[in-house]
Amino acid sequence: MSDEWAIVERAFHAETARAYEGLFTLGSGYLHVRGSLEEHLADAPQNLEYTRLPADVTSEKFPETKAKWGTYVPGVFGRHPLLNAEMINLPWFLGLVPIVNGERLEVEKCRIEEYRRELRLDHATVKRRLRWRTKSGAAVLVEFERFVSGAHPHLCAQRMKLSADRAAEVRIEAAIDADVRTNGYDHCRRVKLRRMGTNGIACFVVIDGGDAIEMQTRVGAPGCEWRYVETPRAATLTADVKLTGGNDFIVEKRTVVATSRDLMVRSATDWMRQVEALSFEQLYAEHLEVWHKRWESCDVEVEGDQRSQLALRASLYHLLRAHVTNDDRVAIDAKGYAGEAYWGRYFWDSEMFLLPFYLYTDPPRARTLADFRVNTLGGARENAKRYGYDGARYAWESDAEGNECCPNWQYADHEVHVTADVAYGLAHYARGSLNDDYLSGSAAETLVETARYWMQRLDRRPGEDHPSLLGVMGPDEYTPISNNNAYTNRLVKFALQLAATVGEVGGASPEECQAFERAAEGLPIPRHEDGVLVWQCEGFDTLAEPRFEQLWHNRGRRFAEQVPRERLYRSKCLKQADVLMLMMLFPGEFSDAEVRRAWNYYEPLTTHDSSLSAGVHAIVACRLGLVEKAWEFLERSVGVDLDVEAGGASEGVHIANAGTIWQMAVFGFAGMRTAMQSDVLTFEPRLPAAWSRLAFPIAWKKGRVSVGITREQITVTNRGDATLRICVGGETHAIKAGQRQVWTLLGSDSQTP
Amino acid sequence: MSDEWAIVERAFHAETARAYEGLFTLGSGYLHVRGSLEEHLADAPQNLEYTRLPADVTSEKFPETKAKWGTYVPGVFGRHPLLNAEMINLPWFLGLVPIVNGERLEVEKCRIEEYRRELRLDHATVKRRLRWRTKSGAAVLVEFERFVSGAHPHLCAQRMKLSADRAAEVRIEAAIDADVRTNGYDHCRRVKLRRMGTNGIACFVVIDGGDAIEMQTRVGAPGCEWRYVETPRAATLTADVKLTGGNDFIVEKRTVVATSRDLMVRSATDWMRQVEALSFEQLYAEHLEVWHKRWESCDVEVEGDQRSQLALRASLYHLLRAHVTNDDRVAIDAKGYAGEAYWGRYFWDSEMFLLPFYLYTDPPRARTLADFRVNTLGGARENAKRYGYDGARYAWESDAEGNECCPNWQYADHEVHVTADVAYGLAHYARGSLNDDYLSGSAAETLVETARYWMQRLDRRPGEDHPSLLGVMGPDEYTPISNNNAYTNRLVKFALQLAATVGEVGGASPEECQAFERAAEGLPIPRHEDGVLVWQCEGFDTLAEPRFEQLWHNRGRRFAEQVPRERLYRSKCLKQADVLMLMMLFPGEFSDAEVRRAWNYYEPLTTHDSSLSAGVHAIVACRLGLVEKAWEFLERSVGVDLDVEAGGASEGVHIANAGTIWQMAVFGFAGMRTAMQSDVLTFEPRLPAAWSRLAFPIAWKKGRVSVGITREQITVTNRGDATLRICVGGETHAIKAGQRQVWTLLGSDSQTP
Repeated sequence: MSDEWAIVERAFHAETARAYEGLFTLGSGYLHVRGSLEEHLADAPQNLEYTRLPADVTSEKFPETKAKWGTYVPGVFGRHPLLNAEMINLPWFLGLVPIVNGERLEVEKCRIEEYRRELRLDHATVKRRLRWRTKSGAAVLVEFERFVSGAHPHLCAQRMKLSADRAAEVRIEAAIDADVRTNGYDHCRRVKLRRMGTNGIACFVVIDGGDAIEMQTRVGAPGCEWRYVETPRAATLTADVKLTGGNDFIVEKRTVVATSRDLMVRSATDWMRQVEALSFEQLYAEHLEVWHKRWESCDVEVEGDQRSQLALRASLYHLLRAHVTNDDRVAIDAKGYAGEAYWGRYFWDSEMFLLPFYLYTDPPRARTLADFRVNTLGGARENAKRYGYDGARYAWESDAEGNECCPNWQYADHEVHVTADVAYGLAHYARGSLNDDYLSGSAAETLVETARYWMQRLDRRPGEDHPSLLGVMGPDEYTPISNNNAYTNRLVKFALQLAATVGEVGGASPEECQAFERAAEGLPIPRHEDGVLVWQCEGFDTLAEPRFEQLWHNRGRRFAEQVPRERLYRSKCLKQADVLMLMMLFPGEFSDAEVRRAWNYYEPLTTHDSSLSAGVHAIVACRLGLVEKAWEFLERSVGVDLDVEAGGASEGVHIANAGTIWQMAVFGFAGMRTAMQSDVLTFEPRLPAAWSRLAFPIAWKKGRVSVGITREQITVTNRGDATLRICVGGETHAIKAGQRQVWTLLGSDSQTP
Repeated sequence: MSDEWAIVERAFHAETARAYEGLFTLGSGYLHVRGSLEEHLADAPQNLEYTRLPADVTSEKFPETKAKWGTYVPGVFGRHPLLNAEMINLPWFLGLVPIVNGERLEVEKCRIEEYRRELRLDHATVKRRLRWRTKSGAAVLVEFERFVSGAHPHLCAQRMKLSADRAAEVRIEAAIDADVRTNGYDHCRRVKLRRMGTNGIACFVVIDGGDAIEMQTRVGAPGCEWRYVETPRAATLTADVKLTGGNDFIVEKRTVVATSRDLMVRSATDWMRQVEALSFEQLYAEHLEVWHKRWESCDVEVEGDQRSQLALRASLYHLLRAHVTNDDRVAIDAKGYAGEAYWGRYFWDSEMFLLPFYLYTDPPRARTLADFRVNTLGGARENAKRYGYDGARYAWESDAEGNECCPNWQYADHEVHVTADVAYGLAHYARGSLNDDYLSGSAAETLVETARYWMQRLDRRPGEDHPSLLGVMGPDEYTPISNNNAYTNRLVKFALQLAATVGEVGGASPEECQAFERAAEGLPIPRHEDGVLVWQCEGFDTLAEPRFEQLWHNRGRRFAEQVPRERLYRSKCLKQADVLMLMMLFPGEFSDAEVRRAWNYYEPLTTHDSSLSAGVHAIVACRLGLVEKAWEFLERSVGVDLDVEAGGASEGVHIANAGTIWQMAVFGFAGMRTAMQSDVLTFEPRLPAAWSRLAFPIAWKKGRVSVGITREQITVTNRGDATLRICVGGETHAIKAGQRQVWTLLGSDSQTP
């Protein structure tokens, strides 16, 4: 078994338990469950109530608990009393505990002689094997495995195998625990538990958001008689068995989850019935088949560096897992349904950091993300109205209805670029999937409504002959209120122009469309008097120097943790790429000299405190031929979730970072241009020193392509039905359907612009 | 009885009940109690729990209740779970209810044939008289009176007189109710009630902030036998009496309050013992004597307009009441101990809007405000440290320890001018009281420590030869983050220069003092290229136009209630005076042309959404000879607390507004220069059309002066022991001790600059 397909926990440490819980999240799109230990940990209660306040999540301290259970069904939201709608943490159903000769398995307290847990990325399965020397002297081998079925998305299947070196009395406990909280708050209005037959538990919960959830668990083990014990918010099945020395004892547990939000109206009983005739092995085989197909569509192979290979696959795994197949009523939340730090809300991450991956590997999946925005136009209209504008204003932090949920006014009020990002995402989906009807069809009204918002949001200052967008926060969240942010202005320009082209279908008058077009033309991009440097915003040069040398004592920790917010806000320090993000999205509009000038100016000012920063920098670095720099950024990104010692995915997976890791490989090192940037599939590869080969499939405008890149050559196979036009080394070629073509690459030095 | 000494409620209306509660607050400095009705109102529970969130108090909506009890002892703070330290609302002791023939007095439900309640400002007494036709047919005259004793500051004395036109069965209830909340939160850790003798209740409460409070109530009435009834958090004494037709029946209630914060270690029992031999009449006479002296030192007499006369006296009344005599461990909170909307915290109001009144009427009272800042240097140091600076940083919202309590980061982080305002206030006290030793004595360390903070807070931008103060909010809170705010820079310059002069006493080295001086010299005041207009901050002209015509639909309500915050923050609209405030404080540094240019530019942009705005505008208008304008601002201010229909003092008295009303009369219409502005006592009177005479006493540099101004002349009487130099009409004169001098004034037209 290659290490490039498995993330391995080699010993249990309480300090990293939460990080592994996040990283080992399993999911089917419909149902997600964090990688908590089946037997749980002592002294880690899951019903603690505490108050989260409006805060900057980036630097927020979370309650110190060793474990954090998480069971999430996308779209199940409730109302937090202070912080608006949040995704609900549902009852925990993983509980499955062996008690041998009266000693309960607890990895911190028992004598564990061997321990290995792994997330198999290709199999989307968590397995654990541990050797436990009980106080009674018995050596017990315990093996757990679990998966959330790709084939039956409502099902989680678990198995525990026990064997001992001598006879032992074993008690098995299997539970559903509904005494859980979400961000310290209890959203359960009603909890009902009951015994189901001889070997089952049913759990019924009504959430304060109004949704009902039903869970059913069934356990199976040879010769067991199960007793049922119920406490106010939990139920446990218990059985006693005699283990004979040297023989395996296997317990299976299956849980199905149904909610009132389900697309297909089926009860948990229906879902359970659907799988009852299938053995664990059969279920597993079906699961693997689904995941095998998923990987085929997107796996990025890297030769030369195991760590980046593993990080790429871990990213792809979570991107595949977190996408809610066929359900356009939700998008993907900032923590990838693996934690509740960002309240399960949807950000601009969706358009800028997630959509490209789906679009270029599995376009229908990108469509549901685009459709989500179209579907939540009503919420966006409400947001606009609440702010006193006509039209539609997308939320900085959206719930499933599109409502603005962000409790921090500086972001909610000022980070308006998200509304333009949505338009960009709709266009990206349409162009990338060669589905132009989409924009003049279901998306048209959305585009017009957002344009109407912009028309009212723009100001015209006395003495100026152009509109201005004042009082905004760009992608760099350390400049909270600025005028004519270059990134925002350019995206708004794009959105207005797009609305002008589809306006009449979307309900706009010709005069309105002309006004969109005129406003778009006038929006300025502020520049230095040298004409080369693009200013992040007007007056950027009047901000204070960031003085990193004096103030950023520990470069291993975020700058924001070491200085007060007021210093961030008055200084030139950037949280993340802003002008460079603009240049990444619109590469054709900026000369190499301009990009290099911007790089030289902004990169030294950038703290990269946001995990969204590194990917953009890596891609721009590749354009500039700064491959070593790009590599440094990739290395930074691969650790975001994998470095469990640093916290990693404790509060959830950084799913946008996962998306940018894919972008770094494909848009950065392979130098692919997106469909927004080029009509012809284009590659300008620049492999990092550590990689000898990079290969990946791409979905391109209804066709499919396989790409293989080494230091010497690039091989492209046209797996579609039509001839493919492709640009490599600045020249455009054609590849017939089913054909492969190979080009020799120039040395990387000569590619430096 | 003249109306100019009484605020009268002529009929009870539920809609204005809270406003009268605030406006009719009685207090001794030590103890304050809102003007709630003795019998309370039905359906107005005082134990409702709710959550206040960090919000802009100016536009916050408060829970709709008809009544809000309030009992405050300055300095008794507890910890609000979300919003930091807040002043605690203590148990309510006013309860005193007649029940006639089984019918309980309730002004909303009973048939009330006459009703009149008044706050006698000169007597600091609330009296009520009502004629009540009971269902049994009896006409009952009920008269209440109460005062918080000026002579015995721990005591509140109440009296109720009943008489009926026929015999009636009367039950009297007198209670202490400890089932109260502060801003919807329960701060009581422990409540203990007990019967005290035959006619008393003792109530002992421990607050979560650690303080202990003891209240004792005693009732007295001829021939009554009192029964004692206790519920978990309240206790009531009840007695039944027979009222004979035509005879008065009088009940007295006395309550004393002692806390663990008291300056003199005396128990409630001690305080009660101190007054037990005194009759109600004796207590009242002592009380009036104290208040008579207070009024002598400050009363402003106006002839020609009753409304402004009353507003002036109401302002003075609350200023006299709210000051915590001899206790420099607290200052005066933003609601003048008459409500808890601003959590009982201390703002820059103290230095800029309150201190001048005390300084020029009763200098020792100003000293306690100055000393409060010196005493809380420790908290200011902690604030600086928490923000990563050396030195001392005063809190935007201070508790009694000086800790920053403001839960809104935009103010807490950016409204740093308060630290310079503190230095200005210390200097103002010293100069106004001719106590220069103060600055080189106890205040020196404070001045040096704040200067050290400024030195680190300043930035030096590349290419500039001067320091800059970046990322600040000036007095105008609608421009939240700006660079080189003129007001702030000038005040910081003042603070640095002052620190340089006393630095060595305060622990600074000569080099440090030189650095203070150099930084002070370099701080810029941004100006328009015309050289005349002072910019509020750099780039002020790049903000959006406020578009009041289109957006400010209802001029009777605040602009901020009608547009979203993001529009306030990106627009030129001002909440309150900013550059004009600078020009008010430093009139000698700006020519009339500059002031007029600033007035013409900023006044039309100013929403006056802050109650602190009008006073500054009135004073500047007087300087510019715009007396009619000044009068409009005075009219606006006099309504702030008096207009009960508009809400008035519902959430507490706008005590800074009270301070500015005094300033408008004295610094505005009388044209007095402060000791910061002139070494010689100077007047440039410009009476408004409505006033035929204005007269007031002034404490000036250890002396006292009486001033009388009519349209024709000004009369100044030197009541001090030394010759007084005085400047009237631009010429300086001398008045010998005990002498009076009269000058003829020019017509107001010729005074227009």
